[in-house]
Amino acid sequence: MPSYKELKRACYEANMGLNALGLVIYTFGNVSAVDRSTSTFAIKPSGVAYEQLAPEDIVIVDFENQVVEGKLRPSSDTKTHAWLYKNWEDIGGIAHTHATYSVAWAQAQMDIPIMGTTHADHLTEDVPCAPPMSDELIAGNYEHNTGIQITDCFRERGLDYREVPMVLLGNHGPFAWGKDAAQAVYHSRVLEEVARMAYLARQINPAAPRLKDALIRKHYERKHGQNAYYGQ
Amino acid sequence: MPSYKELKRACYEANMGLNALGLVIYTFGNVSAVDRSTSTFAIKPSGVAYEQLAPEDIVIVDFENQVVEGKLRPSSDTKTHAWLYKNWEDIGGIAHTHATYSVAWAQAQMDIPIMGTTHADHLTEDVPCAPPMSDELIAGNYEHNTGIQITDCFRERGLDYREVPMVLLGNHGPFAWGKDAAQAVYHSRVLEEVARMAYLARQINPAAPRLKDALIRKHYERKHGQNAYYGQ
Amino acid sequence: MPSYKELKRACYEANMGLNALGLVIYTFGNVSAVDRSTSTFAIKPSGVAYEQLAPEDIVIVDFENQVVEGKLRPSSDTKTHAWLYKNWEDIGGIAHTHATYSVAWAQAQMDIPIMGTTHADHLTEDVPCAPPMSDELIAGNYEHNTGIQITDCFRERGLDYREVPMVLLGNHGPFAWGKDAAQAVYHSRVLEEVARMAYLARQINPAAPRLKDALIRKHYERKHGQNAYYGQ
Amino acid sequence: MPSYKELKRACYEANMGLNALGLVIYTFGNVSAVDRSTSTFAIKPSGVAYEQLAPEDIVIVDFENQVVEGKLRPSSDTKTHAWLYKNWEDIGGIAHTHATYSVAWAQAQMDIPIMGTTHADHLTEDVPCAPPMSDELIAGNYEHNTGIQITDCFRERGLDYREVPMVLLGNHGPFAWGKDAAQAVYHSRVLEEVARMAYLARQINPAAPRLKDALIRKHYERKHGQNAYYGQ
Repeated sequence: MPSYKELKRACYEANMGLNALGLVIYTFGNVSAVDRSTSTFAIKPSGVAYEQLAPEDIVIVDFENQVVEGKLRPSSDTKTHAWLYKNWEDIGGIAHTHATYSVAWAQAQMDIPIMGTTHADHLTEDVPCAPPMSDELIAGNYEHNTGIQITDCFRERGLDYREVPMVLLGNHGPFAWGKDAAQAVYHSRVLEEVARMAYLARQINPAAPRLKDALIRKHYERKHGQNAYYGQ
Repeated sequence: MPSYKELKRACYEANMGLNALGLVIYTFGNVSAVDRSTSTFAIKPSGVAYEQLAPEDIVIVDFENQVVEGKLRPSSDTKTHAWLYKNWEDIGGIAHTHATYSVAWAQAQMDIPIMGTTHADHLTEDVPCAPPMSDELIAGNYEHNTGIQITDCFRERGLDYREVPMVLLGNHGPFAWGKDAAQAVYHSRVLEEVARMAYLARQINPAAPRLKDALIRKHYERKHGQNAYYGQ
Repeated sequence: MPSYKELKRACYEANMGLNALGLVIYTFGNVSAVDRSTSTFAIKPSGVAYEQLAPEDIVIVDFENQVVEGKLRPSSDTKTHAWLYKNWEDIGGIAHTHATYSVAWAQAQMDIPIMGTTHADHLTEDVPCAPPMSDELIAGNYEHNTGIQITDCFRERGLDYREVPMVLLGNHGPFAWGKDAAQAVYHSRVLEEVARMAYLARQINPAAPRLKDALIRKHYERKHGQNAYYGQ
Repeated sequence: MPSYKELKRACYEANMGLNALGLVIYTFGNVSAVDRSTSTFAIKPSGVAYEQLAPEDIVIVDFENQVVEGKLRPSSDTKTHAWLYKNWEDIGGIAHTHATYSVAWAQAQMDIPIMGTTHADHLTEDVPCAPPMSDELIAGNYEHNTGIQITDCFRERGLDYREVPMVLLGNHGPFAWGKDAAQAVYHSRVLEEVARMAYLARQINPAAPRLKDALIRKHYERKHGQNAYYGQ
């Protein structure tokens, strides 16, 4: 039987990061970290305040939403995480927040337009806002269907989750992901900053254009392209 | 004669929470905690700065606004608290703040529309904004009449205070309540967040719709319904 | 010869309060404290960062702007303070900040409308915005004329500085005062909060009305009237 | 061979200031400090988080972008710094941030209008927003061309970099400079404040005018003119 100690520790620290970065209050939000070798993931327990969270409280769940280890009930959003891990094989961590500006765009039911290099340093597309689900899907297996709503949105728009590591759920809020839980939190923080910058830019100049293609490509490529020269 | 030590301590800590959460400055705001067995409540003394507040400063008052214990004058809003405790039997604590975004909606004399799941996780209705009182009521027993203004608003709109734990007073600010003083503060903080999110969403998209009914019910029920599965 | 030690200490602490409350950055802003018995006042030295300020750096100046004690040059706004002390006999302290929302209204060249009880708890009028000075007055004895611009504004509008303890200077920023330097800082902080609330309320609802007269009188009187019952 | 220890230390401290002042998150932004005697400058290494930065990580580069000392790769924006140092002989430090309000104006592709004395205390002109580069320049030697875009903007508008110590790059963000790296950070912080004040003023009153010339001259001259009397 595998030991989940390190996975729990990574998940715990990523969750505490959500709180330290001001992306959540009280018990809002959750982060998970996957172990691909055992097809299980660690996730925040449901409704536990961050100040009271401890590494041993983290719950281990498999991709069919069964608890493998842990005494507490896992996050109510667990099925959304499971669906994303099962369908998107290259992600190692997922974060869900109710960060203010990200939620505001989700409540506005609008994509966040790519308006500057801060955005293009991380992704080459507008941050997609998936529409609210149909009443049938909401009344059914809601959190599972939330996952499907996300993957459907990416499929319909032809987006690659490896290049667009974040999404807004209309009237709800953001999900972000990455190679591990820490990067999922990083993308959540960047999303909040990009959401705030786009909000302010459009308030200052409602006619402000999107970033031109040449700048989108340049900034994304210098960080993520074959000949990337950003970082060490 | 009962000892009010624990009640005072709970009231003190809830008041300090208002300050720590950034919902008040200086001497603004007040929280009370009720003891139903003796029909008395503990409340912040009037005009005392939070940095100087101590548990023994908390004042004990009955539902007829008579001081039962304490050397200081109770909050100038005491009669509003007394009225609410007397009329709404299931509340254990009340908080009043001048939190910025909550006050801004009150000054705009507008209900806060339910625009996202953050809101629906806590209540299924727009946050009601009670209209400013008539001149006669203001010139009369003002703080007592403020309580009546709140209960009248709920009666006229057919709202249940157990399901809508918060209100705005037009041109003044918010009152929130809950099963105890700590939850009243929690609802005050959630209200401020919901007020800020709705403000930003409408700035981004003035035509942004309210949350659809299916999502309102789903999110409220998973936290508060008979088959709730949020939390431990 | 009088010792100015206590006056300097009070002035120093009030200045540090400006910084702690987030009303200034770097060397911006200044607070003074008057000693009516000697017709002198203590004021922040010019261009000194708050982190480097010490009580002994505070400069003592008389109402004719002559330095009475201190090695440093007094604030460049000293003449404005001197004029206000000389003309308004009941004030004990003055604070000048570049707090963001207060400055924004000054740059908008608009009075801050009285829109809520937070405002009416402190004053019964819109916060006046004095117009920018004529070119002749600017090119002349600028800081002295700034004081005249403030007292002229109050005289022309029939305002009483004892009841309206704050003003905006068009395109510049706020001055506030009170019975002592600490209260001048308190009024500066309240002004910033009121400026932010009015800004947000008008963004939410551009047609939001001013507070009705009965509420203005009620809230001001319960704190400042003959039968005030707020505080201890 | 010269020792760069002090230059690295000054550069390190200025970079840490960016982070402490809230002008950057994660690895965003960079500050450099020049040594005119050796025509080299110290600059932040690329992609290193501020919490992990140490003085010995700072990289020394010459004006032809060659690393003179240091084991890490210098900032990806190094060529922009080199160009500015080579062309503008009187600057001692340069700072680049992604501060929120500064970026918002850059994304709006608008100059920041001079609307108050806070602005005029530091410069007499609108903060210029250089247009985004042509596709050819972006695809070419991008960071070098970014420098040219800045100096071209100043040349075409007849601006003096000694009097206008900051610029916005359209859709990107701000660069600021000064006599040393600490002053470059100071100008970045002032720019962010001025950007926020102008944003708010225009939201309150879209027709709010620019500051009148007499006030611009007065405020700039009392701090920077021949007969300056601000400071010690």
